[in-house]
This record gives sequence, structure tokens and C-alpha cells, in this order.
Amino acid sequence: MSSDRQRHTGRLFVISGPSGAGKGTICKRILEDSDPSEITLSVSMTTRVPREGETEGVSYFFTDKENFREKIEEGGFLEYAQVYGNYYGTPKEYVMEKLEAGTDVILEIDIQGALNVKKAYSDAVLIFVLPPSMEVLRKRLTDRHTETEEAINMRLSETLKEMSVMDQYDYCIINDVLDDAVRAAEAVMKAEHSRATEDVCRRLVERYKEELD
Amino acid sequence: MSSDRQRHTGRLFVISGPSGAGKGTICKRILEDSDPSEITLSVSMTTRVPREGETEGVSYFFTDKENFREKIEEGGFLEYAQVYGNYYGTPKEYVMEKLEAGTDVILEIDIQGALNVKKAYSDAVLIFVLPPSMEVLRKRLTDRHTETEEAINMRLSETLKEMSVMDQYDYCIINDVLDDAVRAAEAVMKAEHSRATEDVCRRLVERYKEELD
Repeated sequence: MSSDRQRHTGRLFVISGPSGAGKGTICKRILEDSDPSEITLSVSMTTRVPREGETEGVSYFFTDKENFREKIEEGGFLEYAQVYGNYYGTPKEYVMEKLEAGTDVILEIDIQGALNVKKAYSDAVLIFVLPPSMEVLRKRLTDRHTETEEAINMRLSETLKEMSVMDQYDYCIINDVLDDAVRAAEAVMKAEHSRATEDVCRRLVERYKEELD
Repeated sequence: MSSDRQRHTGRLFVISGPSGAGKGTICKRILEDSDPSEITLSVSMTTRVPREGETEGVSYFFTDKENFREKIEEGGFLEYAQVYGNYYGTPKEYVMEKLEAGTDVILEIDIQGALNVKKAYSDAVLIFVLPPSMEVLRKRLTDRHTETEEAINMRLSETLKEMSVMDQYDYCIINDVLDDAVRAAEAVMKAEHSRATEDVCRRLVERYKEELD
């Protein structure tokens, strides 16, 4: 990325956290509050068959396995994973185009995916969304009536395991009151546009120096 | 600092930048917008004589040189400097007490002082306030009618020199429109309360683990 482009580029925000933490609701609210030219959700590429109502380029980019594997070889994904025999991935080019156009991109993915994105693109900002307590998480999962108690217990153990890598994240937001969590996430997104990255600083010094010469 | 205390501690924000960037105005606005129990300005200690209207513990903590030097020896300052034969410093204990009581502390100091604070207390958040351009800075300084053109030129060169350490700061805020700069600073202060520090993460994992056991 050239330093000229960096100047007005968007930032990539990766939001993840345990199931039931409410990361999806937070993302939805952030998008509702903002202009699509300012903040957009990333679109994944997948090899699975489109379901009814899914639109190419909106729900997913649909492709076949051969093309997907080629793109992996070319380093075309910020992260990818195989789930039940199908590939899912975040196309690097798509995200970079948005960022370079000055649009912030939100990526809602699992913990492993988030850490892979950070490796591929170190400017990514990682946000971990947490439930306020294990008891609240248990209640949220129970109220869904979609899983057995055993499955829920496994999810809670899994959550604890996932939290062990939380210190590799930049921020962690405890989703107790939704409005507060949304405001916290929005503050993070705004603040990160004032980040004194090396690139930003070098560019500013150059510009001010030119002016003075 | 114990991990229990860290949980509700305030954050230390160091605001600096060239003269004429408007850092004082930004600090004033942030304090006006907030509750004194939430955000407060740090009070410096000095060996200079109190001026009329200055109040002990509000304007400054006034002391003598012997006591000041003793405090230096004890590591009692986050930073200190000697100006025209008098000492000025930020008392560590005063700041720590505020932080541990859950109050954010704002410290408005020069670049060298800011970098020293970061060395003494790595959790400090450094914010560099910049004028939008050298031309605007020149105009602001000229409009004050307090300095000669030569002195202003020296300030502009000094500004460029100061900017060379900007990449050691966490954030840089360009003060073009004051309201925007204040909002940017407030977003930084809010966002930093969601920072996933090692301490915060360890504490959260412990708490959730206990709940699950």
C-alpha cells in the first residue's frame, strides 16, 4: 500500500467472540448507525451452494473448489477455513479495495480466523466481544432453545478456551447493556482513525516539512 | 498495582504538541464535557513562588528545592524538568491515587515530558495534537501578537523537530475544526477503556473460570 493511499484509507475491524456474546447484533447496530460508504461488512467467498434468497456479491461470493484453492495458493485470502467439506474465506482484494476507497470494513469471524487476519494484515484491529458473565451466557444460550444442556456446557468450556487468546486482541468489549457495547465499539472505530502509525507520522512530517521549505 | 484495582482504574492521557496546536483548548473542552470524578487534570509540583490567585493543590503543589530533589531521588515523579532555575514535575503518587480511584487523568505537557511519562508508566496513552498545517500554525501564532516573525519561524522549525518523535505516540489528532478534535480525543479516551491489556485479560479469564468451576 503506498503512503499516499494510506492517508485516507479505511481501517479493518475484526469482531469476534464466543457464540451468544452478541457480536452479530453489535455489528448490525454499527452498520445501521453509519453510512455504507463509511463502514461496510466484508463479504466472504465460499464453495458451498447458494441458498434461496442469497445474492452473489452480497451474501457471499460463490465459487468452486478449484478456483478457491488457486486463490489460496496466490495468497488471495486474509483467512480461510474448511467447514463440513466447504471452503469459506475473506478475499484480500475485496477488503483492500474497500479500505483504499476510504471505507472501514467490519469482519465478523471466529477467533482462529481473527488471529489469521492479524498475521496477514497487521493493521487490522481485533475486537473481542464478551458476555458479562458465564451465567448470562448460559442464560442467553438456554433461551434460544436450540441446544441441549450438554451442548451448552461444552460451549461455555469452549468460551473459556477462546478467552485464553484474548490478550492477542486489541480491545475487549463486555456486552452487558447493548447500547453501551455499541458505543464502545463505535468509539474504538473512531479512535483508531487517530492512531499514530509509522506511516501516518512519516507522511505528516513530510507534508509539514515541504510546507516549511 | 494489584489486579483487583486495575479493574476499575482510570487511564492516564498525556496530551502534548506544538505551541499553537490548541492542546490547552482541547483539554479544557474535554473537562467541561465531563464529570470531575471521571476525568481530572493532573496538578504539577513546582519550586517556584506562588503567584497571586494561585491555590495550593489546585494550580500547583508548591514546595522547596530540597524537598523536590528528595522526591526525585525517591522516584516520586512521572516526569520533571528544570525551567529558569525552578523545578516542575508530575507527582507520581497524586496521579496514581486518582487512577486507582477510577478517575482518568489528563496531563498536558511538552514532548520530552510526555516521553518520560511513557517510560515511567507504560500504560499512559500519548496523544499528539497537531495544527492542520504550518500555514495555519503560523497564522495562529501571528494572531497572538506576542512574538516576532523570527521567533515564530523558530517555533515552526521546532514544531517540525518535535514531530519527528510523533511515532512514539499512540495517537495523533489534527486540530483543524475544534469540535472534531475534541470528539476525536474523547473517542480515544473512551476506546482506551476497552483496551485488552494483559492485566485485564488475565483478570477476566480468572473471573469466568471461577464462575464455571
